Amino acid sequence: MPQLNTVNRQFILARRPQGMPTHEDVKLVQSAVPSPSQGQVLLRTLYLSLDPYMRGRMDDTPSYSPPLALGDVIVGGTVCRVEKSHHDKFREGDLVLAYGGWQDYALSDGSGLQKLDPAMPRPSMALGVLGMPGFTGYMGLMDIGQPKAGETVVVAAASGAVGSVVGQVAKLQGCRVVGIAGGEEKCRYIKEELGFDAAIDHRAANFPVLLQAACPQGIDVYYENVGGAVFDAVFPLLNTSARIPVCGMISQYNGARDTQMQDRLPLLMGTILKKRMRVQGFIIGMDYGPRYPEFYQAMSGWLQQGKITFREDVVEGLENALDAFCGLLEGKNFGKLIVKVAE
Amino acid sequence: MPQLNTVNRQFILARRPQGMPTHEDVKLVQSAVPSPSQGQVLLRTLYLSLDPYMRGRMDDTPSYSPPLALGDVIVGGTVCRVEKSHHDKFREGDLVLAYGGWQDYALSDGSGLQKLDPAMPRPSMALGVLGMPGFTGYMGLMDIGQPKAGETVVVAAASGAVGSVVGQVAKLQGCRVVGIAGGEEKCRYIKEELGFDAAIDHRAANFPVLLQAACPQGIDVYYENVGGAVFDAVFPLLNTSARIPVCGMISQYNGARDTQMQDRLPLLMGTILKKRMRVQGFIIGMDYGPRYPEFYQAMSGWLQQGKITFREDVVEGLENALDAFCGLLEGKNFGKLIVKVAE
Repeated sequence: MPQLNTVNRQFILARRPQGMPTHEDVKLVQSAVPSPSQGQVLLRTLYLSLDPYMRGRMDDTPSYSPPLALGDVIVGGTVCRVEKSHHDKFREGDLVLAYGGWQDYALSDGSGLQKLDPAMPRPSMALGVLGMPGFTGYMGLMDIGQPKAGETVVVAAASGAVGSVVGQVAKLQGCRVVGIAGGEEKCRYIKEELGFDAAIDHRAANFPVLLQAACPQGIDVYYENVGGAVFDAVFPLLNTSARIPVCGMISQYNGARDTQMQDRLPLLMGTILKKRMRVQGFIIGMDYGPRYPEFYQAMSGWLQQGKITFREDVVEGLENALDAFCGLLEGKNFGKLIVKVAE
Repeated sequence: MPQLNTVNRQFILARRPQGMPTHEDVKLVQSAVPSPSQGQVLLRTLYLSLDPYMRGRMDDTPSYSPPLALGDVIVGGTVCRVEKSHHDKFREGDLVLAYGGWQDYALSDGSGLQKLDPAMPRPSMALGVLGMPGFTGYMGLMDIGQPKAGETVVVAAASGAVGSVVGQVAKLQGCRVVGIAGGEEKCRYIKEELGFDAAIDHRAANFPVLLQAACPQGIDVYYENVGGAVFDAVFPLLNTSARIPVCGMISQYNGARDTQMQDRLPLLMGTILKKRMRVQGFIIGMDYGPRYPEFYQAMSGWLQQGKITFREDVVEGLENALDAFCGLLEGKNFGKLIVKVAE
């Protein structure tokens, strides 16, 4: 099903996934390209951001956002071009940051649309290092993590869109930064190209031992975005007064682990008490939305000065969005995962 | 073994307790009353504070303070009278707040000693509502809990030294306050005398149902000082953006529960994420020591205006300290537990 100007391809939620989503759960369907009414614009998707939180929206469990209904287009951040405008503030050809979802075309009444900064070197950066993932990494680290020079900061999924920002910003604060990633290539990247102090492969058989060796002073800040076995290895290494921004838990999104372990809830609470730890969840838009300009200014400056590096993993064609998304949940992407939908 | 002027009775840690401490673990012994050297004072204990944290110090597990060594006098806050002084800043007869421990007499070089405010109506208040427990309740609630008018605040051990301050201060912030206590008499006290909106007996068979009914808008702040079954009942009622100051976990101090429950650590972490919760442990002196004057000023004012009520449970005689302490761990005290050691 190639891209056409007369057809709107859409990925819709046809059935709630059990574990990894399949093409039976998330179906590619076609509809006509919609026409904007007065006060609306028609958006054409150029880039679609794929992010782990989307998996949660496919479930029917209470969370910070209402779940997708069956039949809904899968949500997602997009960079779009205004194709037709019946809205005073937008003209045909404008590039905007939108929340258009997994489809070729979307209508908007302009609310939530943001024109792209013309100074941005590449529009796709609005979905990554200068967008939601970069903002998420920056605010969780700075506001909850409160890193101090000399402290040890550990971040998992360290080559990803959020983790790579967390680690590099922590380095700029003078911290020792230990990244956790899957595979040799990613580990080499975060150490050599991103400048982390150490990189640990979570697939290594002796991963907990390697992590401990890389954190001789313990862990002061653990930026949590994976959960599961990584958290289990981090937990005993946490220092007194450790801070844990809880940003995500990708290892749990496809269902809980089958574990024979005894209940560790009392242990976790007891450790939070004894070590005077701070564990805090956050959702970037809800908790920090108004602070976006602060982030944008800092990050733009670092990018211009070459102090922050980033990497995009661009998949061609909307039709490949679901497979790419499943790869993301398995850690197969390398850098910020983006679907290039149109030129 | 009555009190004498020539004998210093001391409770020492003879053996590490398994579960509830016994007289074999914590032994009453005698030694000579020590003589102060140059720069020292001899203190006579008038009041000894009994607090749950002391149980943790008897264990040999890592915590925020080093454990007591075998043979050490059990630690504790005291109100003392200076009996002899070879120290410039103290005179015989001065009343001081000290950390003299479970004994009749103690030597001090003056460090950590604080002369009592002569305006304090009763010296024992320095160990309760105006001392460490009051300070703990106030700072954990205000700094981590950040209660806002109209929110629901839940506190357990609500008739105790810390809980009664938490609930009354939360009322002064305009919150709906639900207290949890053991038994009808304590429940009546927190509702009728302390002015809580609701009081729930945690011994009731349908305690979780009663708690839910008392929190129709869910729970915004849970001041944690008990853990165990109380936390289990609170957990599902926590609202988005809930704050949990973790101050203590008295239900776990005598050993973990024997539970068949599956591992809920991933559930807790996932809930912290989805509900954007803040869970933070603190130790009053270490985290908030310098803010004591702020607390003292606020609390003195409220006491003078009759806006805060408190209750002391005074046990006569140092020799009864251990039995009283075991009663505290079982929730048998009613109000701030203090041992009156001398007139």
